Order: sequence, then C-alpha cells, then structure tokens
Amino acid sequence: MFFVDVLETEGLGNRSYLAGGPGSAVVVDPPRDIDRVVAAAARRGVRITAVAETHVHNDYVTGGLELARLTGARYLVPAGAEVAYARVAVADGDVEPVDAGLELRAVATPGHTPHHTSYVLQEAGRAVAAFTGGSLLIGTVGRPDLVEPRLTEELARAQHASAHRLAGQLEDGVSVLPTHGFGSFCSSSASGGEHSTIGAERAANPALVQDVETFVRELLAGLDDAPAYYAHMAPVNTDGPAPLDLTEPRRADADDIARRLAAGEWVVDLRSRVAFAAGHVAGSLNFEVDGQLATYLAWMVPWGRPVTLLAHSADDLARAQRELARVGIDRPAAAAVGSPADWVADGDRPASFRR
Amino acid sequence: MFFVDVLETEGLGNRSYLAGGPGSAVVVDPPRDIDRVVAAAARRGVRITAVAETHVHNDYVTGGLELARLTGARYLVPAGAEVAYARVAVADGDVEPVDAGLELRAVATPGHTPHHTSYVLQEAGRAVAAFTGGSLLIGTVGRPDLVEPRLTEELARAQHASAHRLAGQLEDGVSVLPTHGFGSFCSSSASGGEHSTIGAERAANPALVQDVETFVRELLAGLDDAPAYYAHMAPVNTDGPAPLDLTEPRRADADDIARRLAAGEWVVDLRSRVAFAAGHVAGSLNFEVDGQLATYLAWMVPWGRPVTLLAHSADDLARAQRELARVGIDRPAAAAVGSPADWVADGDRPASFRR
Repeated sequence: MFFVDVLETEGLGNRSYLAGGPGSAVVVDPPRDIDRVVAAAARRGVRITAVAETHVHNDYVTGGLELARLTGARYLVPAGAEVAYARVAVADGDVEPVDAGLELRAVATPGHTPHHTSYVLQEAGRAVAAFTGGSLLIGTVGRPDLVEPRLTEELARAQHASAHRLAGQLEDGVSVLPTHGFGSFCSSSASGGEHSTIGAERAANPALVQDVETFVRELLAGLDDAPAYYAHMAPVNTDGPAPLDLTEPRRADADDIARRLAAGEWVVDLRSRVAFAAGHVAGSLNFEVDGQLATYLAWMVPWGRPVTLLAHSADDLARAQRELARVGIDRPAAAAVGSPADWVADGDRPASFRR
Repeated sequence: MFFVDVLETEGLGNRSYLAGGPGSAVVVDPPRDIDRVVAAAARRGVRITAVAETHVHNDYVTGGLELARLTGARYLVPAGAEVAYARVAVADGDVEPVDAGLELRAVATPGHTPHHTSYVLQEAGRAVAAFTGGSLLIGTVGRPDLVEPRLTEELARAQHASAHRLAGQLEDGVSVLPTHGFGSFCSSSASGGEHSTIGAERAANPALVQDVETFVRELLAGLDDAPAYYAHMAPVNTDGPAPLDLTEPRRADADDIARRLAAGEWVVDLRSRVAFAAGHVAGSLNFEVDGQLATYLAWMVPWGRPVTLLAHSADDLARAQRELARVGIDRPAAAAVGSPADWVADGDRPASFRR
C-alpha cells in the first residue's frame, strides 16, 4: 500500500507531497521550511529517500536542496534545469524506486517552464497518482509567461501538448496532484476544487477540451500580472538557496524603529487593519499576517530593502518570519512585539486613521 | 506532565535529550544529524522552542546551531563560551520557559570545560531532572583534560565542586541525565549503568564520596589518551558548523580508487574484518561500520585528508557517512558499494590475508 500526504503552504497557494510506502518516501516540491516535511515523514515513520522537483520554481525558494542534504535523500531535478549544485538530473522516462513495489516515473511536461517534469507514482507498475507541479492543474494549467516573454506562446502550446501527453498515458482514476493552483499566482486562472483525477480533467480542463489554437488564445488573453518578486526566485533556486534561518531577529526598540524609517527601510506592521488604523507607528506599512503576507509583501518591497516587523505576539512574528523566508526575504532586519505604544519614543503618540 | 526522550548516539557513547510538555520542548546537546531530533519532536507532536548546549563540545560537531535555525528555537549557549554566531548567552540561574509549568534552570558546573553549564528541568518549580552534560556522569565525571593542560588540575577540582553544587541543590529522586558516559571518551573512566539519580550518585560517585584531594589525584591518575580528533571539534563548534550534508558522495570506480590510493588519500573499507581479510583493495584500511567507526577513524586519519569509503551496501555507506559527519568528516571524497572485485581494475585480484 502507498500513502500520499498533502503538505499545504496556504500563504502561497501551493501544495507539496510526501508519498511512499511502509518504509520510505519521496517528497515532491518541498517548501523552504523543511522542518514541516521532516516532521510529516516522522509521523509516518518513513525515511525520505528522494526529493523531486517538478521545475525550478518561480514563486518560492525551494527547500529541496537542504532537505536532501539533511536526510541524505537523492535530489531529483529535471535535467534541463541548469543548477549550480550536485543533483540527480532527471530525464523523461527515468524511474526512481520509492519503496517495495512503488516507484516514480518522470514524464517531461514542458509548458510552465521548458524543463518542467511531472512524476507518476506507480504501484506494482500501475499508475496511481500524478504529481503534475505546474503542468496540469485542477481546471487550469500553470502559467506559461514566467520564464521569458519571447517563450510565452511556445510554452502555452507546450502546456496543451503536455496535458494531452499526461491524459494519453494515464487512466481516468489516476489522482492529479499539482503543486500550484490553490490560490497560487502560478496558476493561469483561478481554479476550483481540492481534489481531481485524470478523468475529471479530461472532461473539463480547457487544455484537454479545447483545440490548441483556442486554448492558447484564451490562456494568453487571461493572464494577469505576476508578483514582481517572482523574478528573483529562479536565480536563488538555481544557485542553491542558503539554509533556512528562523531564529529570532534582532529586537528593535523605538529608537531603532525611528532610525530605520528615517533611513528609508521598510517597517511592516503585521496586526489587523482595524488595529493599525486605531494606532500605528507613523511611516510603517500594514500587511496583515493573516492575509497572503508573503506574496504581497514580497511583491511590493523594493527587493533587498531591509524589512523590520512589528507584531502583536511572538507567535505572529514567528509565523510571518517563516512565510517571508519561503519567498526569499531570508531574515527580517529587526522585529518588535507588543503594541504601538511600545514602538514610538516616550512622549510621542502613535498615528491613527479616523474611523 | 513532562516527558524526557533519550536520543542515543551510540557510536560516540553520547546521549541527547528532548524534554518538554504537551506543546513544546527543549533539546539538550543535539547531535549533528538533527533530522533525528526533528523527527523525535514530530512523534511527540511538540514544537522545539529551545536548544541548550551544556558546553562547547570537544568530541563531536554540534547540530544545535542548525537545529535552532531550522526550527526558530532559542539557542542557549553558556555565556562563558566565546562563539562566532548569535545565541542566547546563558548565565548561572537563568530560567528558560519550556511549556506551561515547565522550565529549565541553568546551573554553572565548571569542570569538563570552564564554562560548563547544567540545566535543571523544573515542573511547577520542583526539580525533576538534571541535564548534566559532561559534569556529573553515572558513576564518574566528564574528563577535565580536554581544554588545556595547564587548566586540567583546576578543572578537576572544579568538577568536584560542581558535583557537590548539584547534589546540594537537588533531592535524591531527581534524575541525572548526562550527555557523556555511555562509551564516550569524554568520560573520565568507564562508567556503568543506564539510569541514575542524584541519590544514587550521592551514594557512589567518587566526586561525591571522596574528599577533593583524593578525588583529584585518582581522577588525574586514571586519565587515558583522548582521541586526537578532539582537538578539531571546539574550533568548529565555536565558529559555527556548516550545515549537515548527507547526500550521496561521488561514486568511485576502480581507477578512481587506485588514483586516490596513489595520491596518499585514505580508502576505508567498512566491511567486517573477516570479509576484509578474505579480499580487499591493496592499500585500503579496514574500519568496520559496526564498531565505533567515527571515533576510531577520526582519531587515526591525518586531519583533513580525503577519505573514500568502500561499503558492502548503500545502507552501510549511508550509516558511515552519517557517523563521520558527526565528528566533522563532513563529506567522503568518494564512495563505492559492492565487493572487492568491483573495486580493483579488470585483471587485478584483491589482496587477502591468510586465515
């Protein structure tokens, strides 16, 4: 018997997967905060023997390299992706053993990126699930415009062909397990649904029901802006991300906050908009920790500008720090916990907005 | 209620501990291969909120820094240890909350090192266990001669005083949970027993039953050689160890093995001595993976010399690699799996010893 555990990264609208048998498992498209992945494997009581990337990600910093280092797992990366670190270069048709009677078969599915590769989980030689990354999503496909404008139309056509390739190889009952499409901006359009199969996609996915010209025209017409920070993710992922560092940031006092604001740094208040309106440090910006913090803050901040976080609680701060590390804002420059009265100099009053 | 999980590192004769309550836990003296620690916390369903070092270790590379980075835990290091990285400097009497009603209290216990600190686990203000690191061990104490010869006698006296300090503060029922002493060369003498309490040590530990002069004289007279590699551990641990990398080494073929031997590198055969005697690559050295591989190989190898591993199986290779990483042999230069026939050039025959 096999299992597939879904690891949600809700702030980014992505999923990673832990799939395996009684003794060992593979991880597909791990997030950067790999402590969650190691914990999931421990709860299953399995060793992680392989880590597989469907593509070099444009929307987050991968944890794959560090996870492979930490666990000794084989790190499978599509051969077409030029990366700066040692990895197992995966080609179309390659088979990776996962556990007894369980294996992963690579299927080249270009479209989201030129080298994009899906992985079919096979039990006793029979396909049971397909990890489709940014290829075939639930009701849509991964967007084809994140690599290079000159390639976009060609990649859109490739998405159509790749969807047909998967549908041609796999039976209706095979689960479709994509990485993107749960709110992710890597999805070509807002998609619906939490679970799908090849059969369901065959009946309704535009890539499988429309002819290629209609599909490409509508796909390209429907693309909206992608977050600006996406441009910085592929270089990090091809160079090899630095190890995760979630230790507490330097504590900022009122003077430090004022000095950082005066220097043009970003001071980000993570509390609710209602609390922010009632009182905040003048010049600070409000990004609620409960929203898609990572996506929107990374989108807006001038890349590389120091970010100081102000949080209601240590838990909120830790959560924000984890979310930001996932998109390459590796360390807050500083942080403070409490309320605006703690963050302004003695005698100063917090700013507020009229209700 | 609290729990204490013992994490054995048998090859080094050391123990680490995961201790906590229903929601969060502290790790004391983690080994370098922290995937085991994260897994233990996951099985308990707790967050690791603190990592505590009793001292800068002389016998292994700590995983504490990486574990703290990965989990966001506070990294507690005795204030007297000068380290190159950010940490929470712990002073005598400092209290670290672990979970509701559960806390860790630092007790300065110099002797094994000048800055050595024990940690007392307190439930509702009452001491229940003492993490004694290299201070009070089961039936003995941590050796005082690993820091600097000129300090050895002074540190031996300090061990006596520290043992009395712990015994003076703690009731008989308190568990004694040392890091060293389960085969470790950091122990002053071979000790016995798997479990102990302050009461048991009060009745039998030389540091608590002998006067200081007798204790120091006998302690110093009984010290044997320490592994040569110990000299390299403290610098690594004060600089901050590199992240663990357990990915597969480069594969060595027969030509590569011959070339490395000719260049004076070490080629280490991990199989049993019986198998080695029956056939091996001439010039290779035999360190059985089932022995105290890390201690003895690290002791013997000229420090920094490339090491190539020859193993019967991929599992043996992975195990050896993990053990060697724990003592700072970060990466094998190369490795091969199989039998001597695979490791010598075509036409050559393995060497053997007469039975």
